[in-house]
Amino acid sequence: MSAQASHPTLLIPGPIEFDDAVLGSMAHPSALLAYQTTLIAGGFSESHVGPAFVNAFGETLSMLRKLFITTDPKSQPFVISGSGTLGWDFVAANLVEKCDEVLVLHSGIWHPGRSGYFADSFATCLSVYGAVPTQLNAPIGSRPSLDEIGAELKRKSYKAITITHTDTSTGVLSDVKAVSELVHKVSPDTLVVVDGVCSVGCEEIRFDGWGIDVVLTASQKAIGVPAGLCILMVSGRGIDRFKARRTPPPAYFASFANWLPIMQNYEAKKPSYFATPSPQLVRALHTSLSQILSVPLDYRFQKHKEASQKVKKAVTELGLRQLADKPECQANGMTAIYLPEGVAAPDLLPKLMARGVVFAGGLHKEMATKYFRFGHMGVSVTNSDLGHIEKAIEALKSSLAEVYIDKISYEGFEMQHLGIYSVS
Amino acid sequence: MSAQASHPTLLIPGPIEFDDAVLGSMAHPSALLAYQTTLIAGGFSESHVGPAFVNAFGETLSMLRKLFITTDPKSQPFVISGSGTLGWDFVAANLVEKCDEVLVLHSGIWHPGRSGYFADSFATCLSVYGAVPTQLNAPIGSRPSLDEIGAELKRKSYKAITITHTDTSTGVLSDVKAVSELVHKVSPDTLVVVDGVCSVGCEEIRFDGWGIDVVLTASQKAIGVPAGLCILMVSGRGIDRFKARRTPPPAYFASFANWLPIMQNYEAKKPSYFATPSPQLVRALHTSLSQILSVPLDYRFQKHKEASQKVKKAVTELGLRQLADKPECQANGMTAIYLPEGVAAPDLLPKLMARGVVFAGGLHKEMATKYFRFGHMGVSVTNSDLGHIEKAIEALKSSLAEVYIDKISYEGFEMQHLGIYSVS
Repeated sequence: MSAQASHPTLLIPGPIEFDDAVLGSMAHPSALLAYQTTLIAGGFSESHVGPAFVNAFGETLSMLRKLFITTDPKSQPFVISGSGTLGWDFVAANLVEKCDEVLVLHSGIWHPGRSGYFADSFATCLSVYGAVPTQLNAPIGSRPSLDEIGAELKRKSYKAITITHTDTSTGVLSDVKAVSELVHKVSPDTLVVVDGVCSVGCEEIRFDGWGIDVVLTASQKAIGVPAGLCILMVSGRGIDRFKARRTPPPAYFASFANWLPIMQNYEAKKPSYFATPSPQLVRALHTSLSQILSVPLDYRFQKHKEASQKVKKAVTELGLRQLADKPECQANGMTAIYLPEGVAAPDLLPKLMARGVVFAGGLHKEMATKYFRFGHMGVSVTNSDLGHIEKAIEALKSSLAEVYIDKISYEGFEMQHLGIYSVS
Repeated sequence: MSAQASHPTLLIPGPIEFDDAVLGSMAHPSALLAYQTTLIAGGFSESHVGPAFVNAFGETLSMLRKLFITTDPKSQPFVISGSGTLGWDFVAANLVEKCDEVLVLHSGIWHPGRSGYFADSFATCLSVYGAVPTQLNAPIGSRPSLDEIGAELKRKSYKAITITHTDTSTGVLSDVKAVSELVHKVSPDTLVVVDGVCSVGCEEIRFDGWGIDVVLTASQKAIGVPAGLCILMVSGRGIDRFKARRTPPPAYFASFANWLPIMQNYEAKKPSYFATPSPQLVRALHTSLSQILSVPLDYRFQKHKEASQKVKKAVTELGLRQLADKPECQANGMTAIYLPEGVAAPDLLPKLMARGVVFAGGLHKEMATKYFRFGHMGVSVTNSDLGHIEKAIEALKSSLAEVYIDKISYEGFEMQHLGIYSVS
């Protein structure tokens, strides 16, 4: 039985729907053999230092270079058991030191006085390791302007700037290319650090071309692999900055000092040990990257834009408003949508579930019932045979109509909401 | 096709052979349904905050209490994406503070001047976060005596003592029960921390009964789940010590402050978020713990002792010597074996592989060719139908005989080695 067919369609902003072959890579030789060019000597209970796995891990690291569009041999990929959050520790513990100033850009403030969920946490993480974050906020559904960023970069000597590419909590997209260009112009020594947890694999990212120093991400979003991996790409400049530290990294598991030789050895197809990697998750990543790189990345980005436009058009036609209301601030891998006045997420989400579609609520307790999130990444977008997007849009339409009927029946809900639906 | 049947038998000291149902939990509903009592609503691309997964995660945490034999409600289990190594960071960043003294026991020194591989790294990790480790060494294949430990505990005020239960690099077993009793008598404020990476699930551990404060471990050894999870059990006393810190933990991902509420919420079956867990690995852990706990733990420990005795008897009959030469210092989940003079690991391991058995070499470069390691944990021990142990012993016998014949043919190797084999 296809794993795809056996459960409700998961359309949250990660974890996403996984391809059967990717899931199968973790358990079944037959699925693997269809996607791997190497003969799997170790099978599935395999040694983390056996030649077959070392080879697959090495290929995986090399494929990440292609995914991030970097050909600079000094760029360094990392794949480490953990999560996207661990990527913040890697940045905070290796690329900045005690008292270093870091500019943290927020995209998608919740409401005046509350900042973007993920940038806020990244700032906390930086503080834990001794750096001094300055947070640059922006109005709801928006992002700091280039003028504001430029002015702030001139005000202090920042060792790094962090940009949350897509804020998973609000669906606000940052313009990484423009910000990075600005940084290189105004404050060229500042490292450009991108939190790409909800963007790598669905948003355009050109590591070399845009002059990025770090992209950190996780496996379970647009890369399409079960959660459990922290993935980073670090520029040669970032590695040099690490090597020139005045003090050793204040972390052990999250230290580049421990992982750099390991990653370099694996990519050179040499066994190496610091901590045991997960052969199953790395195999799944190998399979997924092989699939992703089998078509041009630009085509993949375009497919995500088209799916996103389709979703956003449907949302607008339903009279719903997005958290990110300016088109240029809207992510292509997810849409965060305000519920109509008087409708709460618990009214809507179970009706979607009954139609076989899982959407996500909000992240913050006080906001959780006021909006919901629709993820559109990975196979749900690239494999149109699955029909996930259309199914979800239809489910949203009919579920909302049902909510309105319930409201009319039980609470005398405003009739006007019904006008836009043809309820049969 | 059974994953077990499709590849050479992996008998290294972790990762071990995984049960088909455990691997299947990561990809296949059917395998899951056979082992889970809960209906899986989310399928396999499932939300980390969906009710089905929250329930499974909660049950998993509760099952860990049984695995560690703790009924004290103040004991706190943690399951976090990472590896056993990350467990050291959790201890070093949460349970001790800057300048705190920690006594690190070594089991299985390599040779005079070189200390146990894993205790050495644990000491490094403690130093990174500011604690001051004192390392207590022991002769080759042995462990510090209770007298030595007692004397050292009286010499300084130690905040914690760390014990590597089984040193994976040498197969030396520590007497955790006796050491813990001694600590409680001589230095009752010292936290008892056990590195159980290579022992949890195959060696007897009584968390409450022995007065242990922390056991840290990983998923891929005797627990029988693919690598990718860091697992900890912390006593109420350990949690109180954490809460009474003078300074906040100097780590972010490895901070109890961030994970404690999450684990408590999951166990109470409430969704919660700090970093995305891996539903696939947690599902696999759920399946494996369900299997492990379906028979009495004492029976499981006894099975591992019997398999270990069988291996060690065969090794002795082959004229081979173990690194851990005193029976009381020999681990029950693995055996580290010196090669005969003149025979190197690369002479032997490929011949074992040709017979469908994967053993491990040494960990240190300078020692790697002088000995090899035979892991006997998990399904290879508990499921005798698989015949893994017998197959491996036979493969070892015939491979060694072949090595000797090669040596005689090509190098005039000592004839006496052949006496013990019946080479047909």
